[in-house]
Amino acid sequence: MKFSTEELFDGIRSGNKRLIAKAITLVESKKSEHRVQAEELLKKIMPFTGNSIRVGVTGVPGAGKSTFIENFGRLAIANGKKVAVLAIDPSSAINKGSILGDKTRMEELAKEENAFIRPSPSSGFLGGVANTTFETMMICEAAGYDYILIETVGVGQSEVLVADITDVFLFLKIIGGGDELQGIKRGIMEMVDVIFINKVDADNLQKAKNTKLELKRALDFIPPKEKNWKIPVLLGSALHNEGLDEIFEKIDAFINLKKKNNRFEEVRIQQAEKRFEYWVQEYILAMMKRDDSVEEAYTEHKKNASAMVSNPSTEAKLFVEKFLRESRSDI
Amino acid sequence: MKFSTEELFDGIRSGNKRLIAKAITLVESKKSEHRVQAEELLKKIMPFTGNSIRVGVTGVPGAGKSTFIENFGRLAIANGKKVAVLAIDPSSAINKGSILGDKTRMEELAKEENAFIRPSPSSGFLGGVANTTFETMMICEAAGYDYILIETVGVGQSEVLVADITDVFLFLKIIGGGDELQGIKRGIMEMVDVIFINKVDADNLQKAKNTKLELKRALDFIPPKEKNWKIPVLLGSALHNEGLDEIFEKIDAFINLKKKNNRFEEVRIQQAEKRFEYWVQEYILAMMKRDDSVEEAYTEHKKNASAMVSNPSTEAKLFVEKFLRESRSDI
Repeated sequence: MKFSTEELFDGIRSGNKRLIAKAITLVESKKSEHRVQAEELLKKIMPFTGNSIRVGVTGVPGAGKSTFIENFGRLAIANGKKVAVLAIDPSSAINKGSILGDKTRMEELAKEENAFIRPSPSSGFLGGVANTTFETMMICEAAGYDYILIETVGVGQSEVLVADITDVFLFLKIIGGGDELQGIKRGIMEMVDVIFINKVDADNLQKAKNTKLELKRALDFIPPKEKNWKIPVLLGSALHNEGLDEIFEKIDAFINLKKKNNRFEEVRIQQAEKRFEYWVQEYILAMMKRDDSVEEAYTEHKKNASAMVSNPSTEAKLFVEKFLRESRSDI
Repeated sequence: MKFSTEELFDGIRSGNKRLIAKAITLVESKKSEHRVQAEELLKKIMPFTGNSIRVGVTGVPGAGKSTFIENFGRLAIANGKKVAVLAIDPSSAINKGSILGDKTRMEELAKEENAFIRPSPSSGFLGGVANTTFETMMICEAAGYDYILIETVGVGQSEVLVADITDVFLFLKIIGGGDELQGIKRGIMEMVDVIFINKVDADNLQKAKNTKLELKRALDFIPPKEKNWKIPVLLGSALHNEGLDEIFEKIDAFINLKKKNNRFEEVRIQQAEKRFEYWVQEYILAMMKRDDSVEEAYTEHKKNASAMVSNPSTEAKLFVEKFLRESRSDI
């Protein structure tokens, strides 16, 4: 990296987009010398983080996420806020078109002085896309962005990762042709805080109202993440700027409720603890895989466990003992 | 243990209930010499396991789980099956009454030659209640039980643990006085395969039918665990033996669907792999806690992570490096 940590830090703090982008490239790098500088930089910016509202946005392709983010972001900017858009999109590495597509679709937002758009990292450090997204979010917060919108297309475990780093989780739904399950992934209903039925117009208004009613009924059987929060189901059209104000209101209401319940900071602390635990496991796993004989042992013991040659916990114990013996020589 | 592994093995295989109980006590023991014998025994019985239908049963206290298990179990026995009843009940250590209560309520089932009832382990090896329950299940399978019913009262993470060791998950619901959320824990709707509305009689039949309809509608928005499975909502009364036949049919239908989709064995393999991974973590954690300085470091780094002194993944890395250095001297 040709920029010093100091230069990057000053660039971030003064809101220099070019240097913000450089800093993000740094934290996304897998090279070990870059990681060292990244850690240095992150430590330096940490006291300036935490002041944004972190919004997760999910929905199937076709639900209108990009249009939503574009117009929602512009509305926030019109209200005097700064908006950063990040993406957790494991599919983008495969389908390169989607990144370009997003950029094109968000071009109005991209022109805004107070917007910063970062396409998905092609792959993260240790394969942990969510980790670099979290670090990127820290950089954006230190740069003074008020809203961080994190988009996911819902591949694999990406919603869980997004839910674990955001304050509020927004689910964009379109009206399914009779099949209400369309675009609803397992687990998603337990994760959302606000639902927005998008692409509603005069032609499908009645249908949208019915879907809303059905969703409301379904939500009667799904406990919300926060006590006393009735998950709102809103109707609108992101393309025509309809219903977006209401989403801001609901997000504010949700954040206020969390703060009132002393849950806002509490949840962020829990998220950080969870991330710590996750990374302890990831690093231990990485250590295991550094050594061929340990990795082989892992595979073999796991195979024994799954074939029920013996008890999975017995196999786990045998493996861990072997691993800790072997790891002596590694350090 | 005054019985040899061979004696216990023969006892299990010949269905000697007293020796089955002794074997379970052995696998529940935390003493290291008992663990050695337990592993020996488990290895020996492993080829004779896997032939039962593993049924998880959950529902709030008052949903009628004990009555249900008693009459459901007796019905299975009347159909020529052998039934074992286990419990994951973390609360029983606190509320000793519930164990005694269960025993009393299930006394008709307990009298049956082809039933085996084991109350909750007061605490499991390494705190892992689910592990001893899994091992107990292996013993019951090797003893020829056809149905293993595993009950949970739904405290903490117990449903997840039960769902992770069973083939089918049954949720007993009672009609809530307007509050449909009553007795529904977060995540439970994503876990169930069959729902039984219990305690239905002439007086509340209409209300039960409404609840069923509403539940069915809600389930339209919740993807089932298995493709092409419509989660059935059944009405009945366990006390009056009403609706129990239908549950057997639905369980059979579900198992058959899984087998047809090649998912029955696949899910069991995934469960075993998951358990292996879980226990690798548990053993590593146990190793960490054996050493005071490592445990202190864990707490400190986690605190730094949650206070956002630095990045959670950085703290995790620092800790893991320290742990592996320290663990040298431990082995």
